[in-house]
Amino acid sequence: MDVIKNTREKCPLVHCITNYVTVNDVANIILACGASPIMADDVNEVSDMQAICNALVINIGTLNARTVDSMILAGKMANKLNHPVILDPVGCGATPYRTEVTKKLLDEVHFDVIKGNISEIKAIIFNSNKTQGVDASALDLVTMDNLDETIEFTKKLSKITNSIIAITGPIDVICDENNAYYCLNGTKAMGKITGTGCMSAGVLASYLVANPENKLEAVAKSIAAIGLSGEISEMNAQGTGSLHIGLIDAMSNLDDEKLEKGLKLYER
Amino acid sequence: MDVIKNTREKCPLVHCITNYVTVNDVANIILACGASPIMADDVNEVSDMQAICNALVINIGTLNARTVDSMILAGKMANKLNHPVILDPVGCGATPYRTEVTKKLLDEVHFDVIKGNISEIKAIIFNSNKTQGVDASALDLVTMDNLDETIEFTKKLSKITNSIIAITGPIDVICDENNAYYCLNGTKAMGKITGTGCMSAGVLASYLVANPENKLEAVAKSIAAIGLSGEISEMNAQGTGSLHIGLIDAMSNLDDEKLEKGLKLYER
Amino acid sequence: MDVIKNTREKCPLVHCITNYVTVNDVANIILACGASPIMADDVNEVSDMQAICNALVINIGTLNARTVDSMILAGKMANKLNHPVILDPVGCGATPYRTEVTKKLLDEVHFDVIKGNISEIKAIIFNSNKTQGVDASALDLVTMDNLDETIEFTKKLSKITNSIIAITGPIDVICDENNAYYCLNGTKAMGKITGTGCMSAGVLASYLVANPENKLEAVAKSIAAIGLSGEISEMNAQGTGSLHIGLIDAMSNLDDEKLEKGLKLYER
Repeated sequence: MDVIKNTREKCPLVHCITNYVTVNDVANIILACGASPIMADDVNEVSDMQAICNALVINIGTLNARTVDSMILAGKMANKLNHPVILDPVGCGATPYRTEVTKKLLDEVHFDVIKGNISEIKAIIFNSNKTQGVDASALDLVTMDNLDETIEFTKKLSKITNSIIAITGPIDVICDENNAYYCLNGTKAMGKITGTGCMSAGVLASYLVANPENKLEAVAKSIAAIGLSGEISEMNAQGTGSLHIGLIDAMSNLDDEKLEKGLKLYER
Repeated sequence: MDVIKNTREKCPLVHCITNYVTVNDVANIILACGASPIMADDVNEVSDMQAICNALVINIGTLNARTVDSMILAGKMANKLNHPVILDPVGCGATPYRTEVTKKLLDEVHFDVIKGNISEIKAIIFNSNKTQGVDASALDLVTMDNLDETIEFTKKLSKITNSIIAITGPIDVICDENNAYYCLNGTKAMGKITGTGCMSAGVLASYLVANPENKLEAVAKSIAAIGLSGEISEMNAQGTGSLHIGLIDAMSNLDDEKLEKGLKLYER
Repeated sequence: MDVIKNTREKCPLVHCITNYVTVNDVANIILACGASPIMADDVNEVSDMQAICNALVINIGTLNARTVDSMILAGKMANKLNHPVILDPVGCGATPYRTEVTKKLLDEVHFDVIKGNISEIKAIIFNSNKTQGVDASALDLVTMDNLDETIEFTKKLSKITNSIIAITGPIDVICDENNAYYCLNGTKAMGKITGTGCMSAGVLASYLVANPENKLEAVAKSIAAIGLSGEISEMNAQGTGSLHIGLIDAMSNLDDEKLEKGLKLYER
């Protein structure tokens, strides 16, 4: 499946309600991967805006009362129109408010994909109405040793939530109810720039909406594409500032051939 | 007219009420072109802030109820003090809310310059109280074939609104009531970075306030300067990330001599 | 004291309530200097967020009613937990609202460090309840000629406010009640990029919390480190865009040895 070619040809419109820390990077990476971003968060227009877009990314990084209402409204409209909706529950679990807002979002909006790190995903499980009875206490940083258990767990979570689940970290795990990928792309230095997670949600939405025939593969490749772009950037980076800019350069130069060559993405 | 020299010498203070997606780039490009930016959007201080500044840029890219009131207050103060006011109606026409807010802004504030792409300008015409009876249905992407018609139309619009009108696109058209420029600077790749339009409004305000003796030329040269900076940047860019940063580099290195050499700006 | 080594080893969590213009740079420079940033400004979570962090930076650059309440709540929690709190009173004195908010912040929160340029510090003095009777009228741009007077004045201000005071400019002055540093690091070109001041507050908080045994030295070295990073960046910068990115690169590569070599920081 030529995920990148499809994305560049269809150039989907991705509506983002996202944090103000990394919003510029999210817009630029969406453009770099072949789609078009629209950032709009006012309650008076988010439904209308979503109606002219093709997908929705909700990122709670700098959530506040005003934008939470907008997230729910836009999410409901996207659900109604069968537009894919992606949740990036940044910092879920860090404060009760973040956890509560995430719970509310999960109650009121269906998410096609939930993407988070291990602690965000754990916080979702411990606090969601839908995941009562799921034991996440064993869930820990993904290693090759606990990979199979993590995958089994993530598949179960995917079944309960009816969402593709992407758990990011040194080893990324991407599962739907029946299938799983793990991904080894990315480098440690990427943890020293802000926004790689937020950017990956933007690329994820772009690939997903342009490749509806195989959603899990599209999601998995978006996670790999960010990691690979970081690897490529790091080869010439002079520090974290140029690593950041080079990551966007690399994404803008990526095609399916380069992606296939650089992929460290495995079915399991 | 040495627009850049004048800007660097006078270093005007440009107050921006702008979107949070590209605000950092707008601030940096205003500095790069020789002026100073101030971003302030709270209703408790926008009038006072405008009073110590020299110009106002209103950009509705991420408008919300809180900042719309601030835009109107700041705009009224700028009008009272005869400070130039620039409207960048980002996404006007995309949602009813954006169109309605733009209409309200045009009703309550006089704009010295309205700068937008063809669909934003069309949305303004179709919805403004002031432009009733103007037929914009024929207005389309500007080409060398429809250039003269577009210019005639834009001059009429300038007369009705009493604003300089800048329509941006592959061919930019900049008109007041009597005179017109078109501009061929800029490259296709610039469409793959966010914020070039927002940045051009910042440069426009800076050049305009520093060159009051020929406003139309100042506006036209600001549009050309952004395009030329993109062209210069593209020569060494490794992708869209470095194109973005290089554009700011190029603007910071621009002087009137380089601008004159690189200009593709024509009176018509 | 190995301020940078300590910062990289302890990797403190720095909670920032800061402006949306330079927030991405602040997050990236905090990562570059070895700490971790968390940006959160909603009144529903700032106390909880501060409780899991190690320091707080309050920057009023784009203050508004919503975030001012959050600043006070987070500040009170930080005070309660003995976390260092840094005030960056951006634009204090520019509008009555900014001055009034700064006054309110100083009344309700104790700041371990107040960092501002000369006009911001003057505005604080003229308007604070605590500094009545202090004559700031003589305070002017710091030069080698008025350095000793400025230092005497700043020590007095430090005593009254019980805060370390950092006055930034071509010559930076950093004082507590009894001791003083001045710093000559930095370059003129840094004034042509936005956010160097905001970034320095992020580094300041990071160094300060990781080096509690000598707070004044930690603060002074953070100011020097930003200046030195700018100097290093300028050697290869192609303009203000790459100066900006290179500054973050340089900070990410800085260690105590390089800092000691490049320091232009003097006790007085």
